[in-house]
Amino acid sequence: MINQLLLPHRLEFIVTDDYKRVVEAIRRMEIRGAPAIGVAAAFALALAASKFKGGGVGEAVKFLERVGEELKSARPTAFNLFWAVERVMKSVRRASTVDDIKELAVKEALAIAKEDEEVNRRIGEVGEHLIPDGGTVITVCNAGSLATVYYGTATAPIYRAVERGKEVKVIVMETRPYLQGARLTALELKEAGIPVKIITDNAIGIVTLKERIDMALVGADRITKDGHVINKIGTYPLALVCMERGIPFYVAAPTSTVDPSTPIRDVVIERRPSDEVTYFMGKRIAPAGVEAIYYAFDITPPELVTGLITERGILRPPYERSIARLFKSHKFQLQERAPR
Amino acid sequence: MINQLLLPHRLEFIVTDDYKRVVEAIRRMEIRGAPAIGVAAAFALALAASKFKGGGVGEAVKFLERVGEELKSARPTAFNLFWAVERVMKSVRRASTVDDIKELAVKEALAIAKEDEEVNRRIGEVGEHLIPDGGTVITVCNAGSLATVYYGTATAPIYRAVERGKEVKVIVMETRPYLQGARLTALELKEAGIPVKIITDNAIGIVTLKERIDMALVGADRITKDGHVINKIGTYPLALVCMERGIPFYVAAPTSTVDPSTPIRDVVIERRPSDEVTYFMGKRIAPAGVEAIYYAFDITPPELVTGLITERGILRPPYERSIARLFKSHKFQLQERAPR
Repeated sequence: MINQLLLPHRLEFIVTDDYKRVVEAIRRMEIRGAPAIGVAAAFALALAASKFKGGGVGEAVKFLERVGEELKSARPTAFNLFWAVERVMKSVRRASTVDDIKELAVKEALAIAKEDEEVNRRIGEVGEHLIPDGGTVITVCNAGSLATVYYGTATAPIYRAVERGKEVKVIVMETRPYLQGARLTALELKEAGIPVKIITDNAIGIVTLKERIDMALVGADRITKDGHVINKIGTYPLALVCMERGIPFYVAAPTSTVDPSTPIRDVVIERRPSDEVTYFMGKRIAPAGVEAIYYAFDITPPELVTGLITERGILRPPYERSIARLFKSHKFQLQERAPR
Repeated sequence: MINQLLLPHRLEFIVTDDYKRVVEAIRRMEIRGAPAIGVAAAFALALAASKFKGGGVGEAVKFLERVGEELKSARPTAFNLFWAVERVMKSVRRASTVDDIKELAVKEALAIAKEDEEVNRRIGEVGEHLIPDGGTVITVCNAGSLATVYYGTATAPIYRAVERGKEVKVIVMETRPYLQGARLTALELKEAGIPVKIITDNAIGIVTLKERIDMALVGADRITKDGHVINKIGTYPLALVCMERGIPFYVAAPTSTVDPSTPIRDVVIERRPSDEVTYFMGKRIAPAGVEAIYYAFDITPPELVTGLITERGILRPPYERSIARLFKSHKFQLQERAPR
């Protein structure tokens, strides 16, 4: 895994065969981005399985269940993490030997990673036509390559539009406290030759007034079945500003981000330590003795969302209905696939 | 002047008798806050006047006019700066000798400073009853002591409520890029023994959902005659969020912040250098070659403002009318005063 805390200054990889190190990397945000932590969790389970010694199938499954709980508790909000753990667990529960478990866990993790690549590509295809040639897109945080396996969720339609020869500019909110926007999204887009400018998170009101912005395009950490979008703090104020200005507000996410059961009131919004706000690059910015309140995500209600760009098409309001339809046909498609 | 860039880590004063150093301090934001830069500009004119040598009254006035232009160009948005320069210039234009000019400039600067103290006190009295005992107030940037001569504009009702024995908690947006909220407002309130917590600017959506917040109370850099509030970036998104959540949104400002003539479309929103965003405490945070768009203020439309707390009472919508009434009675009051 790339240690994302060190970018854009240093490119360093975390190489490990210890699942506990992966749990730690997720908790510390060395790896972040909903799809990326889903894939990382799947591989963590595969690592744990491959190192499992002694005991029978029942014991091995119980052990992996505990590992799964550890992984899920590392970050409570992003749904892909839960989804990936459940998917690997579902697969290993079919095993009849411990060796089967090891093989199935690795297979499933590889499949999840492979699929994420395809999902990114599809999201790019599906959303590309929404971006006008010469247009400017505003985004928050990083829903790009670093957050996924291939070319991102929110960034996928941008990359695809550029591949098709369109000129696209991007304005990215810096995304305090971790600055995923300024550090990661800006880096990715710059490397891809796409013109990108940074703004502070509080600048959305004036920048949408003074600069021409054609659409907002953001990722998601979880989408409830009625279309509430849980994503990095800053998303909801951006959605409100876009509504006021008449700027279309799109969310790009794989269907694995859609939580088919938890109602919005039961979704846990992660709280992180005060120090992550009051210290910056190791230096204290706030007066001694003053603490911060730090929730990592906010909630954008469905009525502010113009559309959800998924690998299976663009969902439109009312989301209760379009998401239900998706899950019905999705189940169907899953059944159609050959069993592994 | 306190060098506000060094707080909360170091308390250092800038001591100068050179008006050019004051211009520089305003431009560099060593001194900031609309009322404070108004007072600083008045004293800069007094310094310039007292050092004026040779020439007659006409020449001295012309010289001070040039100094006034320099001061006004240091920061184009905060209205108090323009107001203070005009007020000193109006005073010196009555002079019949160069010595008169020197005396009048100093007198007027002292009067402006003295009045700001009284204005702060009055804003505190006028707004105090809006804060419930046990209530929590959210604010942005610093409209406190450091931004004024006495105990602030937005903070004045808070200080007054606490003096009256109420318990008040404050949540302050950190206010990137300069962190006036985290560095200055948090410091002031902590020193005053008022419980204060910091949030990142993008956290307003989730914090207003998860924490109980009774009102928003912010300062202003300029208020147009129809009630548009130009204030630090982050104010407009906060106002939008407050409207959605049903949280009253108040602006506290002296009447010297009200611009009686410029229509909102002609108000210059200051743009500052990209580096102030892409560098933080001397370290680059964005990838090399990536620039920022940095407007320092945003515009909150009158329909989002519950009330304007001024030293002369609380103005309510429609602001076009309540502000016009204020100016009528204000002119009357000015005439009533004995000529200096």
